Amino acid sequence: MANITRRTQTMANITRRTQTIANMRTMATNKMTGKTKIELFYDIFSPYTWFAFEVLIRYKKHWNMDLELKPFLLAALSKSTGTTAPMLVPNKALYMTKDLIRCAQYFNVPLKLIEDPAELIFGKGSLIPNRFLIATSLLYPQHLESLSRALWMAVWNKDTDFTQPEVLTTAGLESGMSMQEIERALQHLTHQETKDLLRLHTQQALDYDAFGSPSIVAHVGEEPKLFFGSDRFPILAQEIGEVWMGPEPDNIKHKL
Amino acid sequence: MANITRRTQTMANITRRTQTIANMRTMATNKMTGKTKIELFYDIFSPYTWFAFEVLIRYKKHWNMDLELKPFLLAALSKSTGTTAPMLVPNKALYMTKDLIRCAQYFNVPLKLIEDPAELIFGKGSLIPNRFLIATSLLYPQHLESLSRALWMAVWNKDTDFTQPEVLTTAGLESGMSMQEIERALQHLTHQETKDLLRLHTQQALDYDAFGSPSIVAHVGEEPKLFFGSDRFPILAQEIGEVWMGPEPDNIKHKL
Repeated sequence: MANITRRTQTMANITRRTQTIANMRTMATNKMTGKTKIELFYDIFSPYTWFAFEVLIRYKKHWNMDLELKPFLLAALSKSTGTTAPMLVPNKALYMTKDLIRCAQYFNVPLKLIEDPAELIFGKGSLIPNRFLIATSLLYPQHLESLSRALWMAVWNKDTDFTQPEVLTTAGLESGMSMQEIERALQHLTHQETKDLLRLHTQQALDYDAFGSPSIVAHVGEEPKLFFGSDRFPILAQEIGEVWMGPEPDNIKHKL
Repeated sequence: MANITRRTQTMANITRRTQTIANMRTMATNKMTGKTKIELFYDIFSPYTWFAFEVLIRYKKHWNMDLELKPFLLAALSKSTGTTAPMLVPNKALYMTKDLIRCAQYFNVPLKLIEDPAELIFGKGSLIPNRFLIATSLLYPQHLESLSRALWMAVWNKDTDFTQPEVLTTAGLESGMSMQEIERALQHLTHQETKDLLRLHTQQALDYDAFGSPSIVAHVGEEPKLFFGSDRFPILAQEIGEVWMGPEPDNIKHKL
């Protein structure tokens, strides 16, 4: 009975919220019409970053923003800023395994736990897949988004070794690239232009005082605003004057 | 124009969400009617913990839960688990100052930045105020909630030294305690019973594999579920089958 009362109250509250959002439409007309530039600095070996990536992609049509995807090298950033991997604290590592699965459900992203995350992070590193992303963004920018997703699938769903050319090739094909495009992007991995752009993105993140992945930088107001992590979207929305509708704005559920 | 279209779309989405929640009422009747026990392990010198504390208090009447407030000693937990303070990484410390202010607005909690957080965390410590909370919970449990809030106000709004008896006394008075009650609680600080209960809470948190403050433990399903931080409420709601209505369920705004 108490349960039903509470649910009824919830309904009333949600109705009230709908009215509040109606009132906000007036506010919206006072806003500058220019789009907010939002930069997403990401390293595909960070699992939490995948959630942030998908959420921002989903909000491209809901928020008045220009989203710029900027692959960067987390290892280089961590070295410069003196951060350590949370998985080095045993209780944090244990928590992460549970938290990641809960977050995957909440964000509706097909992430799975992998066999040996330590080998991924401290062994393989993400230099090669990040360079593949950068090379692709230089040559075929239209594929950057889908290739990023395919590489996340490769490591954080299929647990394959994304430092291997055949895994990169498979991801490329899945993302809609032709064999010719993939081969050219692979050849481009060691070009100076590719190395320089990856370094530039990492340096830009550092210049924004970033210290981890994802780092989201919103250009609103007088100075760029940095947001860290996949759990600051309601606050990002607050700061850029947009509405947060949960992790799936096209399919709003109770899990706001 | 695009802005207005987006807002209209938002309205349609919110309406759809209302319907989803209506459907959930059916689900709710299948739920066990027993209340979910939720333990909040908290150290009042952690600013983010204040947000989590206020949110859980606000949800006491919205969620079918028994909330147990458990002051514990974060320094002891950190020592046991090997975690370090985020403020030791300069870029994290810089970010925190901005993030805390944004979060204070989002959560509607009157937190302010303090002059010397390093002195608070590495100098003063929180043993005395935590013992004051524990002594009060033993002698006058009805004051624990309001005293916790008053102590957070003392340090994270008024920037006073909560290791000093006069600050504890002021907080006690503000929380509705009588001078007699405050004096008795202060005398009780060094009683074995007080020391033991603070140690017990810290040990309990460790037993749940906690590593920071706040640690929220929900007793649902086969084993207790640990949630860390003030940014996991939508996921806590998902795990306990409740509805997240943003940080102010009594005053729902757009900032979900």
